[in-house]
Amino acid sequence: MGINLTNFLSSKSNNRKMIDFQDLDHLDGLSISAVSANLYKTNRDDLVMFYFRDGANFASVYTKSKVLSENIKWNLNQKAKKIFSLMVNTKNANSFTGDHGYKCMQNLAELIAKQLSDKQKQDEENPKVIKPKNIIFGCTGTIGETFPLEKINAKIPNLIENIRYTQNKLLWMKAALGIMTTDTQPKIAMEECMIGKTSVKIYGIAKGSGMIHPNMATTLGYIFTDADLSNEILKKLLKKNIENTFNAISCDGDTSTNDMVTIFSTGKANHIKINNFSDKKLNHFDHSLNKVLLNLAKRVVADGEGASKFITIKVTGTKSELDAKKIAFSIGNSPLVKTAIAGEDPNWGRVIMAIGKADAEIITNKLSLKFGDINIVQKGKLHGSYDEKETAQYMKNSDIEISVNLGIGNKYFIAYTMDLTKKYVEINADYRS
Amino acid sequence: MGINLTNFLSSKSNNRKMIDFQDLDHLDGLSISAVSANLYKTNRDDLVMFYFRDGANFASVYTKSKVLSENIKWNLNQKAKKIFSLMVNTKNANSFTGDHGYKCMQNLAELIAKQLSDKQKQDEENPKVIKPKNIIFGCTGTIGETFPLEKINAKIPNLIENIRYTQNKLLWMKAALGIMTTDTQPKIAMEECMIGKTSVKIYGIAKGSGMIHPNMATTLGYIFTDADLSNEILKKLLKKNIENTFNAISCDGDTSTNDMVTIFSTGKANHIKINNFSDKKLNHFDHSLNKVLLNLAKRVVADGEGASKFITIKVTGTKSELDAKKIAFSIGNSPLVKTAIAGEDPNWGRVIMAIGKADAEIITNKLSLKFGDINIVQKGKLHGSYDEKETAQYMKNSDIEISVNLGIGNKYFIAYTMDLTKKYVEINADYRS
Repeated sequence: MGINLTNFLSSKSNNRKMIDFQDLDHLDGLSISAVSANLYKTNRDDLVMFYFRDGANFASVYTKSKVLSENIKWNLNQKAKKIFSLMVNTKNANSFTGDHGYKCMQNLAELIAKQLSDKQKQDEENPKVIKPKNIIFGCTGTIGETFPLEKINAKIPNLIENIRYTQNKLLWMKAALGIMTTDTQPKIAMEECMIGKTSVKIYGIAKGSGMIHPNMATTLGYIFTDADLSNEILKKLLKKNIENTFNAISCDGDTSTNDMVTIFSTGKANHIKINNFSDKKLNHFDHSLNKVLLNLAKRVVADGEGASKFITIKVTGTKSELDAKKIAFSIGNSPLVKTAIAGEDPNWGRVIMAIGKADAEIITNKLSLKFGDINIVQKGKLHGSYDEKETAQYMKNSDIEISVNLGIGNKYFIAYTMDLTKKYVEINADYRS
Repeated sequence: MGINLTNFLSSKSNNRKMIDFQDLDHLDGLSISAVSANLYKTNRDDLVMFYFRDGANFASVYTKSKVLSENIKWNLNQKAKKIFSLMVNTKNANSFTGDHGYKCMQNLAELIAKQLSDKQKQDEENPKVIKPKNIIFGCTGTIGETFPLEKINAKIPNLIENIRYTQNKLLWMKAALGIMTTDTQPKIAMEECMIGKTSVKIYGIAKGSGMIHPNMATTLGYIFTDADLSNEILKKLLKKNIENTFNAISCDGDTSTNDMVTIFSTGKANHIKINNFSDKKLNHFDHSLNKVLLNLAKRVVADGEGASKFITIKVTGTKSELDAKKIAFSIGNSPLVKTAIAGEDPNWGRVIMAIGKADAEIITNKLSLKFGDINIVQKGKLHGSYDEKETAQYMKNSDIEISVNLGIGNKYFIAYTMDLTKKYVEINADYRS
């Protein structure tokens, strides 16, 4: 199940700088708690709370599906300037659960707001009143099943009781494990960077199992930083950096009703004030945020059910980025390309087929194609040195790179996906119960 | 391999009127010949010629891929008013074969035109001079391999020698078998209808193995009628009827560089003259042509590699046909829906997911969903009578019908597809050689 991440990470075929299970430690202004509400038959953690004792600035991006889960509707409706808590549950997506599902969110937000306000009175010198609108939710699991409000309600006191103000590596691991559904590995990433002369942390966890599973599909990504950035700047940073990270991974072309990536900024790092998005002092942060998001996104792909190979698709030389993206995803979502790669067949004709159907501008005799460093097609013709045996050998790698150069412009897009194996069908054809 | 067509055809769940291997007989004005040019290692027929001794009116629709095979480029470049011969070869798609591939078509067209002109001198009272532009080609097989011109060239005399002016059931079967690549069953369909008081035949053969295979992907469909219709009327009839037949089947969302459907009209049925497309005397023909095309298209789906179930997706109640089509194909191309059906899991949440991601107008609380006759969602809510056990039982059928009613308009679209099985991956991951 999933690619051997250590192999994948140590691959020398490109400059990935991912480190297996980076050691995340304390991030000031954030607390974490995870418990089991017995939503599964096992005793695993299924309820994770992120608590910001002084609130956090934030920004989110959500699924583009026209069917939104009830927690996402709740999140979109809150107009708070700061978030005090994000609670994530697994097992139930709270999607297609109608008014009842939405009321569950309201009910839980009220309960959490009340109990966290009580906690403020106990723990803080200047206790703040936390309101339901300061609480947002991540839900992931089966679509259409009644939301297990009572089970979760009953566990809120326990969840809050478990809050510790200092995190260590193990607590991050517990949180990353607690939000998993069909993932086989927790997904954690971090970068440290400078804003002016101050060191700032960017920590992230994610869930999502590549080829999205039964209807426990969802990709969730949560980024935490101690930087002090406004909601507006966070929104711009997230929107910009999601495009070539989480929006550049393709699993099976299916889209969840619950996808959600949120960045929280606790403001505890005492750095020079950043007033706008174009401030050059943000460059390092911007770049580092991209690394964290890309690292997490790649881990989602690498953990795809049944996946045996990680595939990078580089499309360059297009007139528009959109054309490059269309071609990259046409290749990355093609079952014929993905099964060929699973079979270690250098069947480049299928890649040509996928380029052709992408509905992008193509001039056949300017098109070039490489697998790894092997030239296959150059300017529309089979390359003179093409050797199928050499290419077949290349296909045995666990890390396959397909490069397409359209030769008609200077735009590009890189997409990431995995192969399509019998194991994928086996896992996804399994009856849910 | 493929669905048991007899079972599928005898299914009572809807009004399919397909008959297994209809007996096609002689169609005046057409001759057929099939031989082996040893393009495969076995001795199977791989070269099929359709010859119209007096020429035939015609119309074609081609793949929408931006990468066109060389035979399709050839066909598009000819401006003849009548076609005298269509030659189909298998094993090699003549796609991404560059100038050489195109010149092969020209070379073959010249040779065939010359030899058929000689045959005219032998056989006809008023021999016609056949030109290269009167010859078109269907090619299907591997993309990017050098076109086997010499092998085919050498067999043209033999192919023409074998032409018989009368067809019977066996000759049609030979032709249908001769154009197959990875198909497991030949695809033949027919209707007879009236134009005015004259009986007219519509015969068709097709190839295509549903989930399109390695890079022997292509769907080819050829329709022959003894009606006497102009190229313009044929074009309108074909364009109209292709939309809810061959353009309504979804395999794996992949598109060949070689797809081609052509209708030929020999004009031998002595019916009342039809001057325009809107003539009501064409209604029966129009309707019957649709039946033939739909029959062939369904056979392509039913023969999908590894397919174990035939799936009909009816989307109704949309504001536009485009929205209905988007939703139908979003469901029909979703690997998660298709694997669930393979696993006989009534996982309707995945259908909701696919509806959500279709980028169509949706009002959740007007949406209804049925599997067969079983109400699952009604106006956005789980139906009161929904019984998962009953639905699980329904999923055991080899013929699954998913009905989605958006409840906001009166447009609709019906798509046809099959499930996604381990066998599909196994077949498509096999190395070509």
